[in-house]
Amino acid sequence: MPKYKCVIAYDGTDFAGYQVQPEKRTIQSEFEAVLAQMHKGTIIKVTASGRTDSGVHAKGQVLHFESPLTFPTENWIKAFSVLLPTDIIVLEVDIVPDDFHARFHTTGKEYRYIVARSKLRDPFKRNYAYHYPYPLNVEAMREAISYLIGTHDFTSFCSAKTEVVDKVRTIKEMDFEESDDFMVFRFVGEGFLYNMVRILVGTLLDVGSGKMSPHDMSGILDKKDRSFAGKTAPAQGLYLWKVFYK
Amino acid sequence: MPKYKCVIAYDGTDFAGYQVQPEKRTIQSEFEAVLAQMHKGTIIKVTASGRTDSGVHAKGQVLHFESPLTFPTENWIKAFSVLLPTDIIVLEVDIVPDDFHARFHTTGKEYRYIVARSKLRDPFKRNYAYHYPYPLNVEAMREAISYLIGTHDFTSFCSAKTEVVDKVRTIKEMDFEESDDFMVFRFVGEGFLYNMVRILVGTLLDVGSGKMSPHDMSGILDKKDRSFAGKTAPAQGLYLWKVFYK
Repeated sequence: MPKYKCVIAYDGTDFAGYQVQPEKRTIQSEFEAVLAQMHKGTIIKVTASGRTDSGVHAKGQVLHFESPLTFPTENWIKAFSVLLPTDIIVLEVDIVPDDFHARFHTTGKEYRYIVARSKLRDPFKRNYAYHYPYPLNVEAMREAISYLIGTHDFTSFCSAKTEVVDKVRTIKEMDFEESDDFMVFRFVGEGFLYNMVRILVGTLLDVGSGKMSPHDMSGILDKKDRSFAGKTAPAQGLYLWKVFYK
Repeated sequence: MPKYKCVIAYDGTDFAGYQVQPEKRTIQSEFEAVLAQMHKGTIIKVTASGRTDSGVHAKGQVLHFESPLTFPTENWIKAFSVLLPTDIIVLEVDIVPDDFHARFHTTGKEYRYIVARSKLRDPFKRNYAYHYPYPLNVEAMREAISYLIGTHDFTSFCSAKTEVVDKVRTIKEMDFEESDDFMVFRFVGEGFLYNMVRILVGTLLDVGSGKMSPHDMSGILDKKDRSFAGKTAPAQGLYLWKVFYK
């Protein structure tokens, strides 16, 4: 049975996150409902590169599933476009080797986080960026990043709820760009801990606003205690931008 | 009692339109609820330049109200920003003469209509543009506009439900710009009939796709019958962009 890899995008606003939960509208449940419809009621299980939380968006989430259907990938894309709700879209479909696994075979992920800097909040951006109109010391933020990039134990930058034991992760790239009324943070790494990107953004904003100094970053890493880092920045600014495979 | 003029913007997605309706969430009802809160329960009536329908957005709607409160306009803006829901914002507040009227004193309005032209629909634009991926003959559309601009009886381009008797209107400016994956239509006139902009857009798209010819426009105007014009383009592409006063 052919195995398919899909690159999908979704507006996370009206979802209770990616993963199936009873009684909740999730990306996975909507996707599996459409697959069941395409397969005349047969349940087709879908596996994603990882979960995203409620309100978090994706520009390039990846998932795989197996199906006996063999129409050309163009037709899969068209069928998904018609059948999926308007807040999810399938951008690419590829046939992959039987042993491909959307979660276990990732070699990295890119997340972006959008901060809106206009003085007044923008009703049209309320679900797509974090409105933060306060002055920011951009140089201090760049210096803080120099302490955080690379391989560290990120226990302090990870939700205390996490069950994962090994909290050492490598951030390969971490930077931000300013444009008009926005600041777009970019994070590339092999993998990220639960809430890690949002806590990193919250902490960088604390540095930018002077609540913390860039030098505090090594101390916070050393503490291995979530309570020392900044607040978790809200979900609506976060985008799973790209998932990398070999 | 001072009279205040406000310029407001709103994302129309989650509203049943501008005007108060029983049991429905509307822009007017949210705005009046905040004014009542500011005035310790006293009802303050608000008058807008006109209604907008469910799903229609505003970048520059104008309204007026009278209030005994006299704080500086900056403070009004801050208070509205905190108290209004995140899909409405007050952009400007001015004290105006007692005889100012947001509806009766308008000298014109600008509407814009956004059409998304990407091949695949974009989940992030689903509430903010009309997805129309089909080929368009832009020259034919420009020619059609030359028949529609100016003073005409626009009965054919007006919802049959309208109660207004005089359907002669003047379109002062009507054009469109293309940019990347978007086409932005712009309409400026003294006033527009119910659904007029959306029917004009629907008809222009029929011309662009070859279902009608530009020359058909004079015939449609002459018929004075709604059934001869194109479909009403959907609400989510429409923006009340600016309201003009002397």
